[in-house]
Amino acid sequence: MTYNHPKILVAIDCLVFGYDTAENDLKVLLFQREVEPFAGEWSLIGGFVNEDENLSDGAERVLEKFTGLKDVFLEQLSTYGKANRDPGGRVVSILYWSLIKLDELHRDIANEHGARWFDLDELPKLVLDHEDMVRLGEEKLVQNAKSRPIGFELLPEDFTLPQLKQLYDAIYGKSIDDRNFRKKILSTDLLIKTDKKDKSTSKKGAFVYQFDAEKYNDLRKQGYHLDLNV
Amino acid sequence: MTYNHPKILVAIDCLVFGYDTAENDLKVLLFQREVEPFAGEWSLIGGFVNEDENLSDGAERVLEKFTGLKDVFLEQLSTYGKANRDPGGRVVSILYWSLIKLDELHRDIANEHGARWFDLDELPKLVLDHEDMVRLGEEKLVQNAKSRPIGFELLPEDFTLPQLKQLYDAIYGKSIDDRNFRKKILSTDLLIKTDKKDKSTSKKGAFVYQFDAEKYNDLRKQGYHLDLNV
Repeated sequence: MTYNHPKILVAIDCLVFGYDTAENDLKVLLFQREVEPFAGEWSLIGGFVNEDENLSDGAERVLEKFTGLKDVFLEQLSTYGKANRDPGGRVVSILYWSLIKLDELHRDIANEHGARWFDLDELPKLVLDHEDMVRLGEEKLVQNAKSRPIGFELLPEDFTLPQLKQLYDAIYGKSIDDRNFRKKILSTDLLIKTDKKDKSTSKKGAFVYQFDAEKYNDLRKQGYHLDLNV
Repeated sequence: MTYNHPKILVAIDCLVFGYDTAENDLKVLLFQREVEPFAGEWSLIGGFVNEDENLSDGAERVLEKFTGLKDVFLEQLSTYGKANRDPGGRVVSILYWSLIKLDELHRDIANEHGARWFDLDELPKLVLDHEDMVRLGEEKLVQNAKSRPIGFELLPEDFTLPQLKQLYDAIYGKSIDDRNFRKKILSTDLLIKTDKKDKSTSKKGAFVYQFDAEKYNDLRKQGYHLDLNV
């Protein structure tokens, strides 16, 4: 150890978004803190980074601990470091976000840790600066949904165009133009139209689509820029 | 102090971009490390975060120490935290970036710390993961230049449209279409045309413009989205 400088606690907080296709609601995963200060209050899922642990491994560990999920969308978002942000000590927290399909969450594992989904417009009071973290995540969701196909992380594998459009309505927080949206999304050529029809919401039914992740990855390597600014 | 967990060194690295209007070159500010390991090798400017210091204050301190500049564009970009990224110890480093006007740098202060501008395509070997940091900054510069008026942070207060277009050429790394660029940038209504002319590069001269920061801030509050994707 060469450096001589005071050290600081480093934590991971993980903002998990899920989308409830049936209720058309964006949700966030919260749990009740197990440590003082603020034990029992609502918090993002999180934990401290170990001395010998890569940050990204720490984030994966936290996510898996509370959700049972591995190999899902998980990215670093921002680092929070006000000196007085945590009355329990000097903690720098690196915020990661994850977008998961609601039905993939391992409910037994989530229950074991007291983790629960909350509607974004019905959040309980959150500890520390965790509400700022959620608000940043909401902004990033809108920004990212315009330029990357992150919405598909939130949908089941099979979806209809009305479902996809409802998700974008939920992300943007407004009803977007249906015809314009269809035109834009179909022109990307990233949807695979199956011959299945979903008749749960109308007699005529809506064709079931799947997202072509492989094609997107190929295009992305060539510098492709998705434009879903509808 | 409530928490019981091993602590980690937290550092700031600051990626400073400047634009040389005369040479039409994007440059990055580097200095020779003063501490082992890798003392004497080229590095981004940086330093450790103090125990009682907000991260953003630490970033401002580092920037001012090496450049003499305060109150300039300075934003957090990403946090680097591989466990083995620094052979000198476990260090998590928060990368900030700053965009400054080349002629505002206090050269005496920079010289005192051995800081020097380097062309982006003539970088020396950098310590640790600092080359990754520069490459991330270059990507972010392109992305941001399309949606925010960050280019103006790099230009002198008075500039001509050919100079602005050259800056975008330098950021995008290609010659963009002149007529299209003029049309887009003028349609934003964010440039103030002065009655001065710059005749240094042509007999006819080019009108001198200024950026209307106040108007941009008003528009931004209303949810305005700059589109400079040319």
